[in-house]
Amino acid sequence: MKQETAEQWQLFTELLSKINSYNEAVSLMAWDLRTGAPKKGVQTRSETIGLLSTEAFKLQTSSEMGAYLSYLNHATVINELSETQRRIVLETQEEYDRSVKIPAQKYREYTELTAHAETLWEDFKENGDFAGFEPYLTQIVAKTQEFIDYWGPKDTRYDTLLHMYEPDLTVEKVDQVFGQLRDRLVPLVDKIKATNKKPDTAFLKQLYDKEQQEKFGIFLLEQIGYDFEAGRVDESVHPFEITLNQGDVRITTHYLQDDVTSAVFSSLHEGGHALYEQNISPELARTPIGQGASMGIHESQSRLWENFIGRSRQFWERFYGDLQQHFPEQLKDITVDQFYPAINAVENSLIRIEADELTYNLHIIIRYEIEKKIFNEGLPVSELPKVWNEKYSSYLGLTPPNDSLGVLQDVHWSGGLFGYFPSYALGNMYAAQIVNTLRKELPQFEGFIAEGNFTPIKEWLTNKIYKYGKSLRPSEIILKVTGEELNPDYLAEYLEEKYKAIYGI
Amino acid sequence: MKQETAEQWQLFTELLSKINSYNEAVSLMAWDLRTGAPKKGVQTRSETIGLLSTEAFKLQTSSEMGAYLSYLNHATVINELSETQRRIVLETQEEYDRSVKIPAQKYREYTELTAHAETLWEDFKENGDFAGFEPYLTQIVAKTQEFIDYWGPKDTRYDTLLHMYEPDLTVEKVDQVFGQLRDRLVPLVDKIKATNKKPDTAFLKQLYDKEQQEKFGIFLLEQIGYDFEAGRVDESVHPFEITLNQGDVRITTHYLQDDVTSAVFSSLHEGGHALYEQNISPELARTPIGQGASMGIHESQSRLWENFIGRSRQFWERFYGDLQQHFPEQLKDITVDQFYPAINAVENSLIRIEADELTYNLHIIIRYEIEKKIFNEGLPVSELPKVWNEKYSSYLGLTPPNDSLGVLQDVHWSGGLFGYFPSYALGNMYAAQIVNTLRKELPQFEGFIAEGNFTPIKEWLTNKIYKYGKSLRPSEIILKVTGEELNPDYLAEYLEEKYKAIYGI
Repeated sequence: MKQETAEQWQLFTELLSKINSYNEAVSLMAWDLRTGAPKKGVQTRSETIGLLSTEAFKLQTSSEMGAYLSYLNHATVINELSETQRRIVLETQEEYDRSVKIPAQKYREYTELTAHAETLWEDFKENGDFAGFEPYLTQIVAKTQEFIDYWGPKDTRYDTLLHMYEPDLTVEKVDQVFGQLRDRLVPLVDKIKATNKKPDTAFLKQLYDKEQQEKFGIFLLEQIGYDFEAGRVDESVHPFEITLNQGDVRITTHYLQDDVTSAVFSSLHEGGHALYEQNISPELARTPIGQGASMGIHESQSRLWENFIGRSRQFWERFYGDLQQHFPEQLKDITVDQFYPAINAVENSLIRIEADELTYNLHIIIRYEIEKKIFNEGLPVSELPKVWNEKYSSYLGLTPPNDSLGVLQDVHWSGGLFGYFPSYALGNMYAAQIVNTLRKELPQFEGFIAEGNFTPIKEWLTNKIYKYGKSLRPSEIILKVTGEELNPDYLAEYLEEKYKAIYGI
Repeated sequence: MKQETAEQWQLFTELLSKINSYNEAVSLMAWDLRTGAPKKGVQTRSETIGLLSTEAFKLQTSSEMGAYLSYLNHATVINELSETQRRIVLETQEEYDRSVKIPAQKYREYTELTAHAETLWEDFKENGDFAGFEPYLTQIVAKTQEFIDYWGPKDTRYDTLLHMYEPDLTVEKVDQVFGQLRDRLVPLVDKIKATNKKPDTAFLKQLYDKEQQEKFGIFLLEQIGYDFEAGRVDESVHPFEITLNQGDVRITTHYLQDDVTSAVFSSLHEGGHALYEQNISPELARTPIGQGASMGIHESQSRLWENFIGRSRQFWERFYGDLQQHFPEQLKDITVDQFYPAINAVENSLIRIEADELTYNLHIIIRYEIEKKIFNEGLPVSELPKVWNEKYSSYLGLTPPNDSLGVLQDVHWSGGLFGYFPSYALGNMYAAQIVNTLRKELPQFEGFIAEGNFTPIKEWLTNKIYKYGKSLRPSEIILKVTGEELNPDYLAEYLEEKYKAIYGI
């Protein structure tokens, strides 16, 4: 590397570290707002988050950054860089090009608004108060629409949002894979219904002591290899994973007193996200590629640990005894043969995060269709409860009795995360495709799970996916790991095989 | 106010708010490091704290700030301002003059070092590992010495540090009031010893369930009027109060399983700090005067609630029954007549934060003398354990068996807080003097405590002290409230009266 390039590289990475420091502070403030910050401090806190996010934003779009990029991202210079360095430059360039179009003041208003709305959402959800939430959501949508104008709409306006979370994805492609998946899952759901079999799930809904749930959740996280010296577990209304820095990857869980499975599976879900983040190569730390490749790939890892491993027969052959020990009263008469179908019972339900693996995808399709309507057809926010309820009634045969169990259930929109939901279903598809390869390359996969030996699985995933962080694009990862492009048939096959066995069809 | 002044004022307060936002983020990161941040994230976190503190520091010392100050703090302009506005300008000027002398890079190194050392201190203390701590402390002292050179030494080098925490204080004055106090307290301690009375304190040292301690602590905080909607209570190795913003004033407690009083009195102590911060006039928020007047005045309020109220006979006549209900087994045979002398037993001990009200001041004098030796006589850090142990042996007749119970016991030095310790004894003196006036103006003072009715006391303190924040200097407050300057005799009289009654001398 030439002397001048080395100097520019040094200054460039110092600026990246600085931006990263702002992001760490903002993430901690966001974590804190969701895990117990007092109400009366929220207004000032939101302003503080807005201000510091804006400072980071200004650095990201500064003329200094522009100058480093135009020097480093130049044909004659970029070849002096290592592959990792090149990827850092290209990713930074992409973020720069996107951010530089948004005026800093607009960005600040947006972050203050969403930080505030996210906190208020808890109460609105609690009270089913959509009318209270509506003015906030209306503003968030309006500001997001403005951002789309700044960025310039892609094929459709909603494509611009999708692209933020899954860079290689289009509405056209999502319509196609969601359609393909639906065509195989709907007949499966119908067949299951036709059996009239309903696994007994009543025992899952007894009173389960919260502290015991917490202990068991932590036990499972230890088993799968979550590093407690590089993270911590807290409680929040909506479970989430958040990375403050590479040595501080936090997760939260929400405990339901009358449902033992909710916290178990959300711990495994967020634990999956955290395993990804904790195992990104340290050399990528404090750069824009020191994070997951995309929301879809991230969700593939949470889904993989939650569902493909956590809801498997082998997993509970190993851990059901431990669960019984935590709840001897509640589970004394229940065998693993009753427990396994119960946690995999297919039933149309109102709440996305408690849905089974099969119908879950319908919850996503509903949100995807509504988001498309908002941004591509101008659906007003005031009509969301009506449209939401109609779609639940038509796709799942259920009408939410109130907005707490309906349109207010998810935190995402209050945080401005439009275009994010499809990642969940995409994550399921990626996960199925990855597990298909994993099984071939690690033939003892099921055996390892049955032994509770997750080290080989975690290592395989680290070597194939985790360590790369965002230095590969999602389409590159899926091709490199599985040898083919995203293919929804793997998910369909996995679900067909699994549910045929459970329901004997 | 002239148009131009109004414009300058607007820009000036916007800059103050911005600095305040950085401070909020840094405070949250510090709070988080002490309440459970994972180890592997500490290194990066310290860098982040260093970076953001430095950004705040740069804003504070910016040419922009210099320009606003030279406009606003000018004879022809300052008269256009309200009294509060004038105080904001003067306080900002004082901070500016002090900070502008320190190069930003030096400041950053210092904050990174202390953030890191503060976190490591927990382990060093735990393991009594002074050798491990020594290199950090040596660096902190060296950097503090450099800062003194930048600021310019006052009467003595140590005066410069004292001045940071108590602007009107000098070594000469501290030597005098500490001397005056010691001359009255030493004979009192001797008389107490001569009685050979030792209140039974064994029952305080039984096994006390942590969760019950936590519940009782929260109950007491509710009673004294700590606003839980504007704060939260957590656990940390060393209890502290920290203000993130006016609606977010947090405290921590440390629970000892074998000592029921430690958490009770530290809750009242930190609660006292928090009452002060929660009741500063909202119009001072996000300015440099939206905080306590000085460390000494702050400590007077924690001491007032912890000792003058919390260790009074009346307080326990009201609340001992509640304590018994929390620990029916441990306290079933103990009456309030046994409990009251037990929590006020005078006994020389090794640990400052567990010392009685009387000998506590000796712990402070030891630290004060050692700090003077470090900065005025160049005592090397390596000799601290020796000097510490000698002083404890000579003043308190006890030699620490290890450095955990000796020189490593306090967090302050790891955070660079040299010059802070005298505030504690000063706080005791201020508190006694304030309570003397309070009793005259609110003759039912003892009656209110006995009823558990703290509202009139809190209101009196709010109107006389809390609401002013830092808009008055400590010497102004003490004069305004009590009609005279700091006078250590009030503390001596209070202690003599109290202990004569308890020990029958």
